[in-house]
Amino acid sequence: MKALQQQLDFLLQIDQLKAIYRQTTVKVDNNRQENSAEHSWHIALVAQVLQQYAEHNIDINRVTLMLLIHDIIEIDAGDLFAFAESHHHEAQEIKELAAAERLFGLLPGEQGEKMKSLWIEFEQAKTADAQFAKAMDRILPLFQNMANEGGSWVKHSIKKEQVLARNSYLTLSAPKLWQYVCEQVDLAVKNGWLIDA
Amino acid sequence: MKALQQQLDFLLQIDQLKAIYRQTTVKVDNNRQENSAEHSWHIALVAQVLQQYAEHNIDINRVTLMLLIHDIIEIDAGDLFAFAESHHHEAQEIKELAAAERLFGLLPGEQGEKMKSLWIEFEQAKTADAQFAKAMDRILPLFQNMANEGGSWVKHSIKKEQVLARNSYLTLSAPKLWQYVCEQVDLAVKNGWLIDA
Repeated sequence: MKALQQQLDFLLQIDQLKAIYRQTTVKVDNNRQENSAEHSWHIALVAQVLQQYAEHNIDINRVTLMLLIHDIIEIDAGDLFAFAESHHHEAQEIKELAAAERLFGLLPGEQGEKMKSLWIEFEQAKTADAQFAKAMDRILPLFQNMANEGGSWVKHSIKKEQVLARNSYLTLSAPKLWQYVCEQVDLAVKNGWLIDA
Repeated sequence: MKALQQQLDFLLQIDQLKAIYRQTTVKVDNNRQENSAEHSWHIALVAQVLQQYAEHNIDINRVTLMLLIHDIIEIDAGDLFAFAESHHHEAQEIKELAAAERLFGLLPGEQGEKMKSLWIEFEQAKTADAQFAKAMDRILPLFQNMANEGGSWVKHSIKKEQVLARNSYLTLSAPKLWQYVCEQVDLAVKNGWLIDA
């Protein structure tokens, strides 16, 4: 059962995603930092629950799997804060591609290739599925920060325009949610949680 | 947008699953206890990766969603250790049904009903989808304990027959994995990680 051994190796190695910590915090758990595994669970359900707002035809099952695997590359490449400067993002991309090769490469040939392709599709964000998935990944921290008195926005002095830019996938992929995000961002500025710039 | 408000309320309340801790530990993160949110992410991927071993026709997308939502009821009902005595399991069932009513009831009518039905299907474990989902939920701690020198088995003096009984859904839903489990359990006894009874 060589295939099974490879699959178990992959499934055990991805346990490490539970030790990759993000900037967002879990309010109900003493505001400890959130890890990327529980975050991945959460956004998969965000996509399931909010799928009706997708403007284009999406395959929610592909979107869900994309979201479940999209952060696995952080096991090798680490998590980069969403609002880090752009030259950090470029270096990160190279690390992430190598991570995808190694980690999805643990799986038997075709299975690993399929997962890697799905991850690349997510990263490139050109298909309707990937754009909706990206939008879900990015809207969740907004919900969390709004429920947590500004959360990581306040801690890092984030500007309104940064949050709007980060959520701009919504303009095409889920316009009703984009409208909601715009309202929330205005409210966050009013509350002093985002800088008005 | 009353529906959206209800959906956001649900999505924010389920954040609490990140504060429900289980008996299994995360070896790579100083052996801290695992929480039910990251566990749910992990088993959804276990099901995706091991779907080829399903003996019957399963709908992997339903299985995945079942696994993503199956522990949400712990937010109200708490997590019960798999090997707790049976009268604890009976009391737990009543608490869990009330939790399902409240939590899935946060969602707009039809959406909440669909999720609740899916959770009930998982609990009743009569369909091929639910039996495969249950089997995946139960096989993961075995992988984790085998990779962690017996983990929660050692800590709680668990017997071989308890682990076999807990994994018995595999006999019908994934016989090849059942064979693997039997081999691993024998190895665990040999290593002194499970009691030979």
